[in-house]
Amino acid sequence: MKRIVVDTLGSDQGPKAVLEGVKEVLSECDDVHITIVGDPALVKEYQLPEGKYDVIEAYETVTNYDNPVQAFYKAEKVSIFLALKEAGENDDVIGVISSGSTGAVMVGTLKYLLDEKRTRPALAAILPTIDKGRYTCLVDTGASIDCGPHQLVEFAHLGSNFMRQLYKIDYPRVGLLSNGAEPTKGNKLVKETFKMLEADESINFVGNIEGKMALNDMCDVLVCDGFAGNQVLKVTEGVAVNLITEMIKYGYKTGKEDVAKEFAGHIMKTYDFESNGAGIMLGAKKLVLKCRGSSGPKAIKSACHILINLANNKTIYE
Amino acid sequence: MKRIVVDTLGSDQGPKAVLEGVKEVLSECDDVHITIVGDPALVKEYQLPEGKYDVIEAYETVTNYDNPVQAFYKAEKVSIFLALKEAGENDDVIGVISSGSTGAVMVGTLKYLLDEKRTRPALAAILPTIDKGRYTCLVDTGASIDCGPHQLVEFAHLGSNFMRQLYKIDYPRVGLLSNGAEPTKGNKLVKETFKMLEADESINFVGNIEGKMALNDMCDVLVCDGFAGNQVLKVTEGVAVNLITEMIKYGYKTGKEDVAKEFAGHIMKTYDFESNGAGIMLGAKKLVLKCRGSSGPKAIKSACHILINLANNKTIYE
Repeated sequence: MKRIVVDTLGSDQGPKAVLEGVKEVLSECDDVHITIVGDPALVKEYQLPEGKYDVIEAYETVTNYDNPVQAFYKAEKVSIFLALKEAGENDDVIGVISSGSTGAVMVGTLKYLLDEKRTRPALAAILPTIDKGRYTCLVDTGASIDCGPHQLVEFAHLGSNFMRQLYKIDYPRVGLLSNGAEPTKGNKLVKETFKMLEADESINFVGNIEGKMALNDMCDVLVCDGFAGNQVLKVTEGVAVNLITEMIKYGYKTGKEDVAKEFAGHIMKTYDFESNGAGIMLGAKKLVLKCRGSSGPKAIKSACHILINLANNKTIYE
Repeated sequence: MKRIVVDTLGSDQGPKAVLEGVKEVLSECDDVHITIVGDPALVKEYQLPEGKYDVIEAYETVTNYDNPVQAFYKAEKVSIFLALKEAGENDDVIGVISSGSTGAVMVGTLKYLLDEKRTRPALAAILPTIDKGRYTCLVDTGASIDCGPHQLVEFAHLGSNFMRQLYKIDYPRVGLLSNGAEPTKGNKLVKETFKMLEADESINFVGNIEGKMALNDMCDVLVCDGFAGNQVLKVTEGVAVNLITEMIKYGYKTGKEDVAKEFAGHIMKTYDFESNGAGIMLGAKKLVLKCRGSSGPKAIKSACHILINLANNKTIYE
């Protein structure tokens, strides 16, 4: 039996959207037990299968407007911290899912689940590239906004370990996000990191990668600070939505809306933003998935399946 | 007669691609004179209309692998520096076009063309938004890679002036690129800049804008350091190319390649990357357009037309 802890209070769509996702997972998977963190009265309404879930009572969350470190002072009342604590204290828990504040997930992971070999967890996103079936691990995507070069080198190690385990890549290619492919390009942080990655023999460093090539399978791990990584992730999503919207509008204008919708569906499936939106906390002792704030039932369900697959591959535990 | 100085040695496609663009402009526009910087023997081959052009001899350029400050030691031999010097010393020149190294265009502009009210020029891109006919001025896009908050405030002023003149917007809305829309979001640089923009009464500051919303007409001027701006620009381009490629591949697979190509054509026209690829140096006494390294004849022609239109609007001179 695999136990997953799900924080129901983080999503912008409200706890009901999360509980709908949980309900679907429980009806589909026999060997999964879910610990739901949230309002027990609300959980009751969903008539979940007896014996396959339990509830940790919580009514408070951390928003993007709160300071996550200050929020930790009342950790015993806040859903995301309770969820991470449960995972830290119980061996049978395989992982945690939350759509709440990235900062709070970060602080909670640091307190309850940090791998003793690490100084800080990093938030990675596994992004589909133009080469079907090949993915790039972008790290960090927003957990560490201000970074030093040593941190970026640690991201390179964390990402390499993860891709080695998840996709059985022996020597994951590590790229460094920069403002050009030439070794001379970069801000101060990138230039210092470049030298350190070049000197690190345990890293298969392939050099600078510019944003245009981020999703072109130039590397298995793309390293950057959390501010830059957040731009890559969010701009990708924004441009995709804008282009698809423009195409559908044009489809309606020219009477080709059916084809436009078919194309849009194909692109959405290929670059499945809702499923791929989940970030993975690297450097933690358990699997911690941070879903987007906008997550609905589909995203929560997808995150549960990612967790189950990762746990089956014994990723992170190795 | 409007005189434009064109550096022919910067494009990755070689000087011939630039000269083809120049030839087209000269055949279309009666009131334009072009000063060509490059190899006179090569220019001769193009049989350009007599009296409408002259040539400044140059055979050397600055590549992305060179240090632009060191390259300036031999400025009298290098095409981009000669082009900017010509513009700085002659009142009849309306502007300069180059596809060469951004760093070199930056250094040359600083030496020969800096507005005395400014400390440093900034490289802006005028990007089409989802609202047809409305544009966002992204500044900086790669001229100042490492910035302090005072520089970002200067970018806000430069961008506001430009959008006021170019699009007659009385109070251009200024947004600050961040990793979330909330005022608490940002790296150190963004947080410090946020306070300064909030306190500056001459700026119509609308707050933080996340990358997902960069092209959604949330602001007229989007301020960021050159590293982040470069990511926004390049990721936008990369994602657009990848999605369009995926759609056309799918079109071929399903026998709908004609519709796929039609849709692709419409999107390319709406988000015309080749034309919109030109960056504008703000804070210079003359119009300086930095085209992409990959610029071909179409991009050069488009840059000439942008210059002529801007000069007709008396932008920057006011």
